[in-house]
Amino acid sequence: MFKVTFTFESGEAVEAFATSGENLLEVARKTNVAIDAPCSGNVVCGKCRVKLVEGNVVSKKSSHISEEEFAAGWRLACASTVEGDCTVLVPDIAAAYKSRMKVADLSSSDEIRIFETAKEQISEAGIAFTNNLSRISVKMNVPTLDDTMPDNERLMRAIKAQENVDIVHLPYSVLRKMPDVLRESNFSVTCVIGKTKNTIFVYDILPENDESAICGLAIDIGTTTVSALIIDMETGKILGKASAGNGQIRYGADVINRIIESQKDNGIQKLQDAVIKETINPMIAQMCASAKIKTRQIYRMCVAGNSTMNHLFAGINADPLRMEPYIPAFFKTNSLYASDLGITVHPDAHIIIAPNIGSYVGGDITAGTLVSMIWNRPEFSLFIDLGTNGELVFGNSDFMMSCACSAGPAFEGGDISCGMRATDGAIEACTIDKETMEPTLTIVGDPGTKPVGICGSGIIDVICELYLNGIINPKGKFVREGKRIKRDKYGMGSYVLAFEEEAGSIKDVEITEVDIDNFIRAKGAIFSAIRTMLTALDFDISMIDDVYVAGGIGSGINMQNAVNIGMFPDIPIEKFHYIGNSSLSGAYTMLLSKEAEKKTYELAQNMTYMELSAVPGYMDEFVACCFLPHTDANLFPSVVLR
Amino acid sequence: MFKVTFTFESGEAVEAFATSGENLLEVARKTNVAIDAPCSGNVVCGKCRVKLVEGNVVSKKSSHISEEEFAAGWRLACASTVEGDCTVLVPDIAAAYKSRMKVADLSSSDEIRIFETAKEQISEAGIAFTNNLSRISVKMNVPTLDDTMPDNERLMRAIKAQENVDIVHLPYSVLRKMPDVLRESNFSVTCVIGKTKNTIFVYDILPENDESAICGLAIDIGTTTVSALIIDMETGKILGKASAGNGQIRYGADVINRIIESQKDNGIQKLQDAVIKETINPMIAQMCASAKIKTRQIYRMCVAGNSTMNHLFAGINADPLRMEPYIPAFFKTNSLYASDLGITVHPDAHIIIAPNIGSYVGGDITAGTLVSMIWNRPEFSLFIDLGTNGELVFGNSDFMMSCACSAGPAFEGGDISCGMRATDGAIEACTIDKETMEPTLTIVGDPGTKPVGICGSGIIDVICELYLNGIINPKGKFVREGKRIKRDKYGMGSYVLAFEEEAGSIKDVEITEVDIDNFIRAKGAIFSAIRTMLTALDFDISMIDDVYVAGGIGSGINMQNAVNIGMFPDIPIEKFHYIGNSSLSGAYTMLLSKEAEKKTYELAQNMTYMELSAVPGYMDEFVACCFLPHTDANLFPSVVLR
Repeated sequence: MFKVTFTFESGEAVEAFATSGENLLEVARKTNVAIDAPCSGNVVCGKCRVKLVEGNVVSKKSSHISEEEFAAGWRLACASTVEGDCTVLVPDIAAAYKSRMKVADLSSSDEIRIFETAKEQISEAGIAFTNNLSRISVKMNVPTLDDTMPDNERLMRAIKAQENVDIVHLPYSVLRKMPDVLRESNFSVTCVIGKTKNTIFVYDILPENDESAICGLAIDIGTTTVSALIIDMETGKILGKASAGNGQIRYGADVINRIIESQKDNGIQKLQDAVIKETINPMIAQMCASAKIKTRQIYRMCVAGNSTMNHLFAGINADPLRMEPYIPAFFKTNSLYASDLGITVHPDAHIIIAPNIGSYVGGDITAGTLVSMIWNRPEFSLFIDLGTNGELVFGNSDFMMSCACSAGPAFEGGDISCGMRATDGAIEACTIDKETMEPTLTIVGDPGTKPVGICGSGIIDVICELYLNGIINPKGKFVREGKRIKRDKYGMGSYVLAFEEEAGSIKDVEITEVDIDNFIRAKGAIFSAIRTMLTALDFDISMIDDVYVAGGIGSGINMQNAVNIGMFPDIPIEKFHYIGNSSLSGAYTMLLSKEAEKKTYELAQNMTYMELSAVPGYMDEFVACCFLPHTDANLFPSVVLR
Repeated sequence: MFKVTFTFESGEAVEAFATSGENLLEVARKTNVAIDAPCSGNVVCGKCRVKLVEGNVVSKKSSHISEEEFAAGWRLACASTVEGDCTVLVPDIAAAYKSRMKVADLSSSDEIRIFETAKEQISEAGIAFTNNLSRISVKMNVPTLDDTMPDNERLMRAIKAQENVDIVHLPYSVLRKMPDVLRESNFSVTCVIGKTKNTIFVYDILPENDESAICGLAIDIGTTTVSALIIDMETGKILGKASAGNGQIRYGADVINRIIESQKDNGIQKLQDAVIKETINPMIAQMCASAKIKTRQIYRMCVAGNSTMNHLFAGINADPLRMEPYIPAFFKTNSLYASDLGITVHPDAHIIIAPNIGSYVGGDITAGTLVSMIWNRPEFSLFIDLGTNGELVFGNSDFMMSCACSAGPAFEGGDISCGMRATDGAIEACTIDKETMEPTLTIVGDPGTKPVGICGSGIIDVICELYLNGIINPKGKFVREGKRIKRDKYGMGSYVLAFEEEAGSIKDVEITEVDIDNFIRAKGAIFSAIRTMLTALDFDISMIDDVYVAGGIGSGINMQNAVNIGMFPDIPIEKFHYIGNSSLSGAYTMLLSKEAEKKTYELAQNMTYMELSAVPGYMDEFVACCFLPHTDANLFPSVVLR
């Protein structure tokens, strides 16, 4: 056994043991050292760069590491095997996805406005915001030698009489507390109940006048990012909000790599653990601590995610999703409870799952469609969710059609050498001076935060600025030279947004031609999907009344720049609306309102799914889109170089 | 920290660590070294005798250890504290209750005849032996690109159409397996289902033509002994049978001590773990291994036990059972599932609990009453369950009355210095020659097994023989001398059944005046309960048509000897019937037959409970019974000395 020491920019270090010849990325995974591996360790993406400080590691060379970098110690963890004791530096950027969980400061109204707006709009459409969770006071006669009815019968009879129902369920969790709570409260208690027609399910038994909030948990499980809200189910108030990188990132950036990884030994369990034990449970713990509630006060959950995320979350084999005929295990299910999945909330908490409508259009989209409100308007609207998959819904109150395109993780900073999530240190916006080519950066985080990498909205800006300033050509190749333009030995260019000394990183923060190429393919996938779907419906771009943009790309997205690079159609900019994380907003509304939940099932039922790859001409359309802004400049009349 | 080495007669040894002054019994408990402590470590029962081999232990003296024994190293573990490294010998008899689990050899028809008889008799009374578990074949269309219904919907629709029901529940355990089983079996599968009116609960999904048995588990949780059967739910065939000491024994011999122990820190969990994790789960594992079935094939359970055992099994506070007004948490409950309690069978297995009818008359008696058949006959029958508590039911097809008396654990060998359960090495029967006073012993186990201790039926025989041969007087005091009569320095006598050199033990197997006194009180409790209940009903002993005797005392019980010592009424011996472990037989029938389950609830509902301690004259009656056979010899006309 050899000793592997992982050190970090913070100065911290973690020790691990490895057998001779063991893969360095695998050693990191089993030690829970976060190293992103969007390509799942297949020497493709080049994100798992680490620096060998000392010791014995044997690495294959790869195009991701230049000769100079190799000489300086840079290695791909996935292409390296341990052959002796060694010390390896893991740069912050290598774990940018798995960056620290962020619990929101709810004193800022910005954090919750978007959810309140969703709730208001849905209410205005006539959907009642009621759910069947409530608290009741139950008073019983105190038992005596002449009244020896057992506790459970006493409690059930009192509830039946008071609530006028025939069936009362006391689950084990309640049965177990019951004798003590009844006696401590002298047989006057508070019960948290769920009432359905003739039946009451007792979730909890509490002392008389206990006023602990009855809480719910809404979660958006993104391929890259997991976000959650804790909600007071009686008032709708948001009590906590957090987001974190999806712990599954180390098993691949996209759903296909995750599914492949899940097919390995014990893989389904590993992927489920990565999202539940490593990601969701710690988020719940932190949010509850911050909101000063107990995790057991969470009595219901609603989860929105794409079909693969839903399957892996539930620990259910997702392989059929990627194999013809692409059959999911479920579109919707009522069978899941917190205790089944080991989620650390109340064990009997029911898990509502926003319904999937196909292998590639999941609950994130149905939940998002609900809050997009496009189903409630006569105007034709386009809803775009920019996740690791790009998903689109087009329609109005009469019809809706959806499709998915595999945009890849570029919008969330994946597939980009210095890409990261929109969290502290991310460049989220950028302008570039045409003459000096010097950038002006906006960084996520407190003032003074140094740039670590670049997130989706920042990449759009950088590529737009490089293009409009004539620094790159429509194919994304560098055509100017200067201090910030680097060239490798093959002549491939890159633009340095922040030199090592300016950056909060041990490496220049830059964008390379490969990054630009990846991003152009991602934006091309979106635009070609829009065109293909509209054409199939006999619609023209000019007929779009509104565009609702959602997703982890961040509120900083500059819509004009997105049009300029040919990602969004060239229609008046006021038609674009950023609606935030609509998947999470949708989960929030489904949790709070039984009618909203029902409405979402109805939307899912009525939405037509179009399989893009089956549409003739889609690939040609895609190829034509892999250009700035498009090979057909007539589609983007408003875009002119500076 | 000091090192404590526990050695055993087998030569094995276990090491533990103890802080200075730590109680030796507590050290054994936390190390899982089995040392019986019927009095729960209160220096009362004297059962936790161990021998100090070397080292530093400080022990209080007690009447249970003579000066000579103390000098030889004998100590009570509960009265000793560790004050340095030490080695302690734990004799086999000190762990007699916690003796090894016994998996029955089902090739012997004796083992199962008693259950088959119960089933036959109940069937003859018109109760159908059907339950709602069954297997069905389900064939679905194989999905295609044109038929992309998700797996769960495909399966549910097929079941609804085929079985003509509206509701199909697919629990998480099924959802999780479903995609793989469907594809391995090309969408033709076998489902294990439970059908109720309009609803089907799918317990399992298996490959087409899978013929694994659908199994159930019946358990009798006795205070001292736990017994269980694995049953084929489709045929009723018994596939496995086992019994073991209840792991809770180390927390006290009787229910009161157990409840007191459960009130200590984390006590409820400890008591639950002792019976489930340490006792029931290992029994299930061994029975399943022996029957070659998987533990997950057990889809339903039925548990019969007294009220305290039911509560502690369910991990529910039992303290209110022993405090006025003596209110249980439940008489019956439908809320328990295997996964709630961590029982290693199918996680969705429902746990049927034989109903309690009061704090001291539990499911063991209601289940036992069912198989006693007294509810189905016009004749007046008495049903006696000789457990750690003695419980009686008297009545016929028109009425039934029950009562409980605290007989103590003597019938199962508790409260007796060399007492043990009726397992290998136990003296189960005995005759004594009037002249030579030499005993002839019958030992449980293979021929040649040496006596280790004495079980309930053996104690009845020994006391009867000692009394009829004039070796002890009606008060249980020794009145003859001889080789086998020992006297301590106070003149207290004992009778040696096997000297150390004859015994499989490191100590003489004997019965002392204290043991005899304890046993006389136990048999007195039974007889006084019979008399008191009959008198209250205006019945006379001569009006009893039949007596059904059940319990762990063993099939070896000599009814005539039990009459001779005044434990059972002096009526013709052919009226007595030993019906074995009626609690387990009852659980077996309730598991197999929904109608039998319903009948048991009905019996429980209709049975009147008499609180003996509230009946004037009961204590006088009890005192009069503490005599061989009774202070009123007219009650036992057939008993004459030899």
